[in-house]
Amino acid sequence: MPSTDRPYNFAPGPAALPEPVLRRAAEEMLDWHGSGMSVMEMSHRGREFISIAEKAERDLRELLAVPPQFRILFMQGGGLGENAIVPLNLSRGGLVDVVVTGSWSKKSAAEARRYADVQVAASNEADRHGSIPAPGTWQLRRGASYVHICSNETIDGLEFHELPDLKGLGCDAPLVIDCSSHVLSRPIDWSRVGLAFAGAQKNIGPAGLTLVFVREELLGRALQACPSAFDYRVVAEHGSMFNTPPTYAIYIAGLVFDWIRDQGGVAALEACNIEKARLLYDTIDGSGGFYVSRVAPAARSRMNAPFFLHDESLNDAFLAEAKERGLLQLKGHKSVGGMRASIYNAMPLEGVQALVNHLNDFARRHG
Amino acid sequence: MPSTDRPYNFAPGPAALPEPVLRRAAEEMLDWHGSGMSVMEMSHRGREFISIAEKAERDLRELLAVPPQFRILFMQGGGLGENAIVPLNLSRGGLVDVVVTGSWSKKSAAEARRYADVQVAASNEADRHGSIPAPGTWQLRRGASYVHICSNETIDGLEFHELPDLKGLGCDAPLVIDCSSHVLSRPIDWSRVGLAFAGAQKNIGPAGLTLVFVREELLGRALQACPSAFDYRVVAEHGSMFNTPPTYAIYIAGLVFDWIRDQGGVAALEACNIEKARLLYDTIDGSGGFYVSRVAPAARSRMNAPFFLHDESLNDAFLAEAKERGLLQLKGHKSVGGMRASIYNAMPLEGVQALVNHLNDFARRHG
Repeated sequence: MPSTDRPYNFAPGPAALPEPVLRRAAEEMLDWHGSGMSVMEMSHRGREFISIAEKAERDLRELLAVPPQFRILFMQGGGLGENAIVPLNLSRGGLVDVVVTGSWSKKSAAEARRYADVQVAASNEADRHGSIPAPGTWQLRRGASYVHICSNETIDGLEFHELPDLKGLGCDAPLVIDCSSHVLSRPIDWSRVGLAFAGAQKNIGPAGLTLVFVREELLGRALQACPSAFDYRVVAEHGSMFNTPPTYAIYIAGLVFDWIRDQGGVAALEACNIEKARLLYDTIDGSGGFYVSRVAPAARSRMNAPFFLHDESLNDAFLAEAKERGLLQLKGHKSVGGMRASIYNAMPLEGVQALVNHLNDFARRHG
Repeated sequence: MPSTDRPYNFAPGPAALPEPVLRRAAEEMLDWHGSGMSVMEMSHRGREFISIAEKAERDLRELLAVPPQFRILFMQGGGLGENAIVPLNLSRGGLVDVVVTGSWSKKSAAEARRYADVQVAASNEADRHGSIPAPGTWQLRRGASYVHICSNETIDGLEFHELPDLKGLGCDAPLVIDCSSHVLSRPIDWSRVGLAFAGAQKNIGPAGLTLVFVREELLGRALQACPSAFDYRVVAEHGSMFNTPPTYAIYIAGLVFDWIRDQGGVAALEACNIEKARLLYDTIDGSGGFYVSRVAPAARSRMNAPFFLHDESLNDAFLAEAKERGLLQLKGHKSVGGMRASIYNAMPLEGVQALVNHLNDFARRHG
């Protein structure tokens, strides 16, 4: 089937999915591989669905080169759920250090306070979330259960382009990364990670699926108050089927993993993501101040680019004209204002080019 | 489009969905109502998805005649998640009474012990889960935070055909019902209910969505250890959008609600479900002992019918021949053995007739 003229969707999540994934899902909706069933209708304990889940996990492990000492868990509850589930599983009620770089890490710190003695080890609040504090300046406590960072701040548009080397800083605690909004957009240096989690609804698939990558040695530390369904050890022991997993979301994620391999894998996507981000930020920086990014260049996210019109009275016209050109969901988060372009894996270079054309054209007419 | 010859799927959940729902989902996969987006790609805070979620909630309220003093929440975590989420929200760390009628209520009692002083108020274990203890015999404690029952035991095949009248028993505690596997198959007497929850993957839609119906007055009692994402008050205050909800599952549930209305509503489905169950149990009881139901007739579930071949050495042949006739997923739960036919709303009378034909035919040839 030829590609339709679908608009470009810059939503921050749930977000655009690759068109071939949606076509395949539509084709298989009534009958998956001659089984006579939709994937939605399959028992999670049946041969058919088990094969779907096992392939998805295997492909994900291969795409991200996840080492064997990590377990991959398919869970529910999203990033906000994990903000509680991580300390329920790892804090032991002790010390937790959080680096605040934006809205998401701030929420993580607040939620962890239910279960642990939480310290903000570093913060960019004085800098209005404009840059990432250098790891050498972080106040890390001896004996912390873990150190939490959000490796890509979806709302504020900051990204860790290198994960901190806690051991190199003399800290033995495992690093926890909330990588929801940039997972699979670039490789992960697993040697620096203890646990990574990601809501699926940005770079992976439908909302309602959460991925957790956790070192085997961190299983079995859950507090008494941790619900069994969210105890990493229990989930791992049951192969992510202690409770009924979000089966259809896992299936869609698996189709996305197939698509990533077809694109050449994570390295190829990363190269494309670098190109997309450069094109967009160069246009913003080259607009003579018509558009402004408030994030220091070294900390800018490749996935989420918040930007502002110098003359904010033009915001509505900017959005209306964008929509006419088939450029959807560019409005910034309510806590930040302005605009935000989320350019996840599924956004092709042509989509960013179309956005850049609009940026240039709009500035020419209104500048 | 004409109906395909799809097999009949007797899976206990995830389970068969109405074919028109699957067709509609396939048609709308790339473009929902001219929006240019799949429902999976929509921001949960966008106009389009908000309209889908609001309609689903409104339709559900109407179909089940849910009184205004109940809030309807769309959550994640399934029935096993709720086994912890309910006591986290309602127990106040105090007394919880549970009536054990099968595997599911037993699991609920075990999980609630993390948070509360749990007592089994009545149990049918001595009876091998074969009947429901009369409410007049339940040992209910004064001052209990709530009384928990599983109103349909999916694995053991028992159903409360009338909810207990706790007030009539002199008990002031709210009744909590786990109605996962029979929700929307019959009306609910809300005057007897404090909270009802249901995993969606039986009578509603895809796995990964959990419905909670909770009286307004029960909000705001959560323990400190309750994750914000699972605090009923927080979820209610945010219109089920504190964290990103499982958007596609909510959309499919909404299509199922449309289909239920097209069938004539819950009362019409109930009439059909009564007819389906009678046909199946009459065949089992009339087989001269070739097939056996171990549940007392008054307690038999209309949704899940476990049964056993008198000669269990014929089990494999029974299942193989069933599959040849397009009758899928009839194997019983591993903890019970034998067979189980789950005949939810989406199973048409013709499907049960086809099963009954197989039962009669197989018995004739092997009896």
